[in-house]
Amino acid sequence: MDTRELHERGLKLRQQIFGEAAVKARMGAFGDFGKPLQNLINTYAYGDVWSRPGLDNRSRSLAVLAMTAALNRPAEFSVHVKGALANGCTPEEIREVLLLIGIYCGIPAANDAHRLALEALGK
Amino acid sequence: MDTRELHERGLKLRQQIFGEAAVKARMGAFGDFGKPLQNLINTYAYGDVWSRPGLDNRSRSLAVLAMTAALNRPAEFSVHVKGALANGCTPEEIREVLLLIGIYCGIPAANDAHRLALEALGK
Amino acid sequence: MDTRELHERGLKLRQQIFGEAAVKARMGAFGDFGKPLQNLINTYAYGDVWSRPGLDNRSRSLAVLAMTAALNRPAEFSVHVKGALANGCTPEEIREVLLLIGIYCGIPAANDAHRLALEALGK
Amino acid sequence: MDTRELHERGLKLRQQIFGEAAVKARMGAFGDFGKPLQNLINTYAYGDVWSRPGLDNRSRSLAVLAMTAALNRPAEFSVHVKGALANGCTPEEIREVLLLIGIYCGIPAANDAHRLALEALGK
Amino acid sequence: MDTRELHERGLKLRQQIFGEAAVKARMGAFGDFGKPLQNLINTYAYGDVWSRPGLDNRSRSLAVLAMTAALNRPAEFSVHVKGALANGCTPEEIREVLLLIGIYCGIPAANDAHRLALEALGK
Amino acid sequence: MDTRELHERGLKLRQQIFGEAAVKARMGAFGDFGKPLQNLINTYAYGDVWSRPGLDNRSRSLAVLAMTAALNRPAEFSVHVKGALANGCTPEEIREVLLLIGIYCGIPAANDAHRLALEALGK
Repeated sequence: MDTRELHERGLKLRQQIFGEAAVKARMGAFGDFGKPLQNLINTYAYGDVWSRPGLDNRSRSLAVLAMTAALNRPAEFSVHVKGALANGCTPEEIREVLLLIGIYCGIPAANDAHRLALEALGK
Repeated sequence: MDTRELHERGLKLRQQIFGEAAVKARMGAFGDFGKPLQNLINTYAYGDVWSRPGLDNRSRSLAVLAMTAALNRPAEFSVHVKGALANGCTPEEIREVLLLIGIYCGIPAANDAHRLALEALGK
Repeated sequence: MDTRELHERGLKLRQQIFGEAAVKARMGAFGDFGKPLQNLINTYAYGDVWSRPGLDNRSRSLAVLAMTAALNRPAEFSVHVKGALANGCTPEEIREVLLLIGIYCGIPAANDAHRLALEALGK
Repeated sequence: MDTRELHERGLKLRQQIFGEAAVKARMGAFGDFGKPLQNLINTYAYGDVWSRPGLDNRSRSLAVLAMTAALNRPAEFSVHVKGALANGCTPEEIREVLLLIGIYCGIPAANDAHRLALEALGK
Repeated sequence: MDTRELHERGLKLRQQIFGEAAVKARMGAFGDFGKPLQNLINTYAYGDVWSRPGLDNRSRSLAVLAMTAALNRPAEFSVHVKGALANGCTPEEIREVLLLIGIYCGIPAANDAHRLALEALGK
Repeated sequence: MDTRELHERGLKLRQQIFGEAAVKARMGAFGDFGKPLQNLINTYAYGDVWSRPGLDNRSRSLAVLAMTAALNRPAEFSVHVKGALANGCTPEEIREVLLLIGIYCGIPAANDAHRLALEALGK
């Protein structure tokens, strides 16, 4: 497949999950300097991996929340809390993943994840 | 609830997911020195968090694979590949999580996770 | 032991180390969404592990500072700087742990830990 | 550009850096299960990012050694020690990066990196 | 060599890379409490490791950016973006390292590094 | 102080904690390639930081166990289990730190630390 098609497919999926305004803001924030990274994200992350069959997007969202909390990357985690809601996860399901984080990544990771999730959920 | 009840409930769930022989081997490997940790695992990890309603065990397994791959903990990751199968995940679904690991945790983490998953899946 | 007793014992120890107002603020900040996590913290972290005999709380505090600095979890680290003082550690003893962090976790971790410790110590 | 072209370009660069036999072994080790990951590596890691102008491959190799040592990923680190030699780095230059690892990531990371580098350098 | 000589040599190199005002501000921010750490940094990090022959400072800067991005240490990363410019790296070369971070450490690490680099580059 | 004096003081302390044979083996394993790193360890880690007054070596050992478990560095952790015994820690005190690791770093880190500690303690 041509990489431009992958890019377009990825950008559409990304907009569908996070909303057009949020994606536009994120892409614009990095300017020309960030174009190659945004291209990687649209083409490979969303146009390729996220677009594969074989797993529902609800499960993908919960797995990405688990990874980004474990990796200690708050900006990405917050973005994906909203994405998880858009992909059909309930706040209660998200909380169950946060409690598993307490067990597998430790209480400080779970505390950080709860604080960020509450902000992103608007609670 | 009494902690002994939680412990019993957790031990049963753990045996159901990983098999009685595997749990017995893991608990025995740490001897007396490891009893307090095994108690934490049975009572709190499985008797409490894993026993909560609100999320299916299939999703929990995928989230724990995501966390333990991100945390770089191969022994725990391998155990939970087998647990994921027991909880109804297919190898293909597991692979989709491993590809997300490549995007969010990086290619080295995905390489390690693939190698461990292939061993645990007996492929 | 009943988990409610563990919870009560843990909450008391937590209040004794960090002060009633600080614990109330932390527990309230997460609302209903955070109740299951706060329950894990009170019951298992403080009611069980921190309440065990076998190690003085001064040593526990220094070890937790070491872990949370290594894990890069600033909010938790700051809370435990104050807890370390309450458990009888001096600022000079805390600094010796921060210098070990420079050796074992690297200079960036030690820089972050110094900045956070100075804020928490009110210096 | 078509992704098959990117894949071919990446595979060639990868073979040039690590040798055809080593790349074949790595790609074969993961079987059919690992094909999507190998595709990501060939197409995006080597066909896209590593093939970009703007930085010499010698500097790329030293940066990747720095990252994989910091990330604690020994298999990937070892592969890239050999790649660094192929890209024109000397063992002495590699050692300077390992000493910086001691300062920025801590002595345990530098110890592990030295052990792995000595093995990969055949010393 | 006497450690005072190492300290002086390191301080001079540090001032040359980051500017006298920035070094003075960083050393002052930690006060008396931070003097032992600042001494470690001047004497060992800059007076010893950074002062060694065997690798150009441009390569050292790119390697340190790679490490501090992988380690998730934003304050240190930002300082070293400026140091990389002073050591002769171009913004485009720095960006190539950030794209490698996307491949080896994952997209969230690359996003964070891009945001911090843009701020430090004043773009 | 002259760095040779620091080096000698550090080497003596290191031998006192870990035994002459173990230190000789570790220093020899890295050969000429590893001499600069061994010099950093003897001079700065043991000749400077570990030789400072202000904290007893028993507390230093427990803090280093906490850090190296959190950092996921098994070789260094194992060495320091033996060092902790030499510095007067009991196996029971070490275990209390390992249980705190379960709470703050997560169960997989505590499992790994228990396995390594049991081996190092010869149990």
